[in-house]
Amino acid sequence: MNIRSESPAADESESYLPFDVSIGYQVRQTHRLMQRYLQLKIDPHGVSLGMWYFLRALWDKDGRTQRELSVIVGTMEPTTLTAIRSMERGGLVKRVRNSKDKRKINVFLTERGHKLKEELLPLAKEVVGKAVEGFSDSERQVFLDSMKKVQSNLLRQIGEDHVVDD
Amino acid sequence: MNIRSESPAADESESYLPFDVSIGYQVRQTHRLMQRYLQLKIDPHGVSLGMWYFLRALWDKDGRTQRELSVIVGTMEPTTLTAIRSMERGGLVKRVRNSKDKRKINVFLTERGHKLKEELLPLAKEVVGKAVEGFSDSERQVFLDSMKKVQSNLLRQIGEDHVVDD
Repeated sequence: MNIRSESPAADESESYLPFDVSIGYQVRQTHRLMQRYLQLKIDPHGVSLGMWYFLRALWDKDGRTQRELSVIVGTMEPTTLTAIRSMERGGLVKRVRNSKDKRKINVFLTERGHKLKEELLPLAKEVVGKAVEGFSDSERQVFLDSMKKVQSNLLRQIGEDHVVDD
Repeated sequence: MNIRSESPAADESESYLPFDVSIGYQVRQTHRLMQRYLQLKIDPHGVSLGMWYFLRALWDKDGRTQRELSVIVGTMEPTTLTAIRSMERGGLVKRVRNSKDKRKINVFLTERGHKLKEELLPLAKEVVGKAVEGFSDSERQVFLDSMKKVQSNLLRQIGEDHVVDD
């Protein structure tokens, strides 16, 4: 961020998609900073960002299958498996083969995994709260609505099948 | 996204930071979809997302140091090095040791790296254009302004030093 103003030769006249007005670049920067701040908050509790998204999805609804978790978190299945196994070793989740459909594995929070919710969700709320500090309720709502509109535009372009197979 | 409505037991009453209204979750989803759509566009040109952000930063200003690229793209230096080396093998960039400060390495686009800009930047513009389809100019501006406000809120929380050291 500082680098641009510090650069010796600020020659950017040719760029016809300047970072400053690129929705893609700004979404990415916003995402990075949210992640960075969240990481600073949860690290002291022994939870990495890589675990965070899976915990979040399981707090929301326990017992999801590994496939569901991949879709929600947006990871490839091998990545999901690696994360879930490491969380299992850390005593946060248990993997249980589905009794009706042997191909499926359900992931359940342990007591410790459940309890982390009370410890960590307030931190996530704090991150979100600080992020939109100074926004009125309606500004916050407009911001959320804009993101949802962008998502539905992109989904229409990509085709939902692609996303589910991600 | 579909998964939640498909889930057998939609028991989500306890969650006190629902995905639907979480700025963090929505920023992440928006980012993921932008990346996914961009990837579909640039893949046929032999450029990966991992290369994309570095190319973008070099098209904006050629000859940046590896350290500057790490800060702008938001990667750790070893990751930057791996990406830059792979781009060098692919004939897109050249690494040149800085004559004034031997500790620095400047990265310059090759002719092929330069030419990719004409081929790929229009695709990125298309991605951004599709993303905000149906937005008025002022809605688009409000969206950009909101993201910048969020970023400055988060930067203030994190402290700029952390970000530069990222």
